[in-house]
Amino acid sequence: MTERVRDVNEDELLRRIFPLLPVGGSTQVGPGDDAAIIAASDGRFLVSSDVLVEDRHFRTRWSSGADVGHRAAAQNFADIAAMGGRPTALVISLVLPGDTTVDWVEGLARGLAEASKPLRAGVVGGDLAGGDIIVVNVTVHGTLDWREPVLRTGARPGDVVAHAGARGRSAAGLALLESGLVRPTIKHPLVGAYLRPDPPLEAGRSAARAGATAMLDVSDGLLRDAGRIAVASDVRLDLDEEAFDEDRRALSDAALVVAQAALREGDAGDLVGDLGQAEAANRLVNQWIWSGGEDHGLLATFPQEARLPEGWLRIGQVLPPSGSAPRVLIGGRRPAVAAGWDHFEQ
Amino acid sequence: MTERVRDVNEDELLRRIFPLLPVGGSTQVGPGDDAAIIAASDGRFLVSSDVLVEDRHFRTRWSSGADVGHRAAAQNFADIAAMGGRPTALVISLVLPGDTTVDWVEGLARGLAEASKPLRAGVVGGDLAGGDIIVVNVTVHGTLDWREPVLRTGARPGDVVAHAGARGRSAAGLALLESGLVRPTIKHPLVGAYLRPDPPLEAGRSAARAGATAMLDVSDGLLRDAGRIAVASDVRLDLDEEAFDEDRRALSDAALVVAQAALREGDAGDLVGDLGQAEAANRLVNQWIWSGGEDHGLLATFPQEARLPEGWLRIGQVLPPSGSAPRVLIGGRRPAVAAGWDHFEQ
Repeated sequence: MTERVRDVNEDELLRRIFPLLPVGGSTQVGPGDDAAIIAASDGRFLVSSDVLVEDRHFRTRWSSGADVGHRAAAQNFADIAAMGGRPTALVISLVLPGDTTVDWVEGLARGLAEASKPLRAGVVGGDLAGGDIIVVNVTVHGTLDWREPVLRTGARPGDVVAHAGARGRSAAGLALLESGLVRPTIKHPLVGAYLRPDPPLEAGRSAARAGATAMLDVSDGLLRDAGRIAVASDVRLDLDEEAFDEDRRALSDAALVVAQAALREGDAGDLVGDLGQAEAANRLVNQWIWSGGEDHGLLATFPQEARLPEGWLRIGQVLPPSGSAPRVLIGGRRPAVAAGWDHFEQ
Repeated sequence: MTERVRDVNEDELLRRIFPLLPVGGSTQVGPGDDAAIIAASDGRFLVSSDVLVEDRHFRTRWSSGADVGHRAAAQNFADIAAMGGRPTALVISLVLPGDTTVDWVEGLARGLAEASKPLRAGVVGGDLAGGDIIVVNVTVHGTLDWREPVLRTGARPGDVVAHAGARGRSAAGLALLESGLVRPTIKHPLVGAYLRPDPPLEAGRSAARAGATAMLDVSDGLLRDAGRIAVASDVRLDLDEEAFDEDRRALSDAALVVAQAALREGDAGDLVGDLGQAEAANRLVNQWIWSGGEDHGLLATFPQEARLPEGWLRIGQVLPPSGSAPRVLIGGRRPAVAAGWDHFEQ
């Protein structure tokens, strides 16, 4: 018989999960007391939080517990990397319906551990509650190791805009899952990019060392997040369409099959309309690259003379602000694609 | 027209909430970047997390947004106090159904601010997501200010057991609300204790200074949480029934009206049965004191020779472990009341 959360009490569930969780290199007092104690040798710490809600951010029919644990850890680590920091400790709160399987929860713990172990980040505490939907809240802590943080506010006209990590792959993977054409498996490169994003954490630290002037984690789409740097730094970002040609090629097959499926099933909606398949696929690719969220790549600006560290692709330049002109341009022009993602508009 | 969360986008909602949130004395970089930066001058920090779920931990028909904000902050602060620490920074994640009123969310921010300001603790970041129920997750951080933490593991046979804060008041307030006899108002002393618990935060620090050997936040009932110290320290705790006589008197009127209402409406269940009103009320009072959760008082053990600081009531003594004997006794005997609260049993 499948064992469910309602069949075990809270203490028993914790006893099952605790041994699976990673112990961190910075943990002085771990789970089990009123609070954990974490080292912060340089006298300050980074903290950020992300919440994942069932049927909004993941579906249990696509994502295993391990996938959700992986993703929750990875996207939080990306926030620390985007400051130029290194993750040290996670705190996890779970809301679990009674019919959640214990297996799913143990998988979640394993996924968190797999993503955290290479970084020596520990899970140091959290909370459990019952509820009608699964909610996974992760709060991540990190250290700057005595370096200065890279904020969103430091981009200057003349700086180079660069990106590290995946572009559009997670959105393509999600579209493939939604089309029903591909089974949910981490073995498929695009579906895997959606189920288990792999942020370029080391690139965040190398960017900080290389003198990046501004940086953020791209979680709501490249255009929207580029706009955030532009507003915070009071500049404009002009992105080069050609910089993404290789990404377009890598996504073109997936876009074609998704466009074909949409045309075949007559549910192409606004996207396809009277367009031919090739043009529809082309639009999909651009939408994934410019507006796809959840790749958790890093977007940064560097001084013009800086050598971009490994893993960073030059994708544009920083312009001075200009009255009511758009904050983000593509090839010097206002973007024709939708900018991104709003958590209440779904 | 009542403005609801679905009527405003995420950025707009954040713009409305941010100005209401408290800025902390330890905040180096606050909300708005990928991560916040918090001072940890003594090279380490405390962290703990609590999640509140609508219809499990609060009901919107009883608790205003401000009440929930207050409670979320207070119970997290209690976890820091229970280590002997001082709260510095909160991170808040909210899951909000689209029909949540903006007013409720603004109230939540105000409640967090009211509870945090006297401590100079700041709200430094968080996350927002849509969902079918309200979930409020608070992660709290604190500092030990160069002192050693008070863990659960240090109680020794011969130590004095003491308690600071409310005992049974929150449970009594909840029972009054459930009985329908009292309207949800923070002006009623017991209902107010339920809606806005007021943990004895300063008592946590004074206990640490006075040499407390073990301490925890009583959130799941006195007996259950006493058992946690007993297990963690491998001792037994023997509590004095008479220590609570004053609490019994303070709760007796409320217990009598709740018992009367239960008898009148015929829904007294197991509690009242053939008992007279007075005996039923007496049992209620004991249940509230021994098993009522959410007062967020502090339970600690002190060396026999220590002088208990202000606000601490001596309630028992620590005994050596004894095979399979119960971990917690009342007047030397196995307790007759149920021990506490399990988050999945509701």
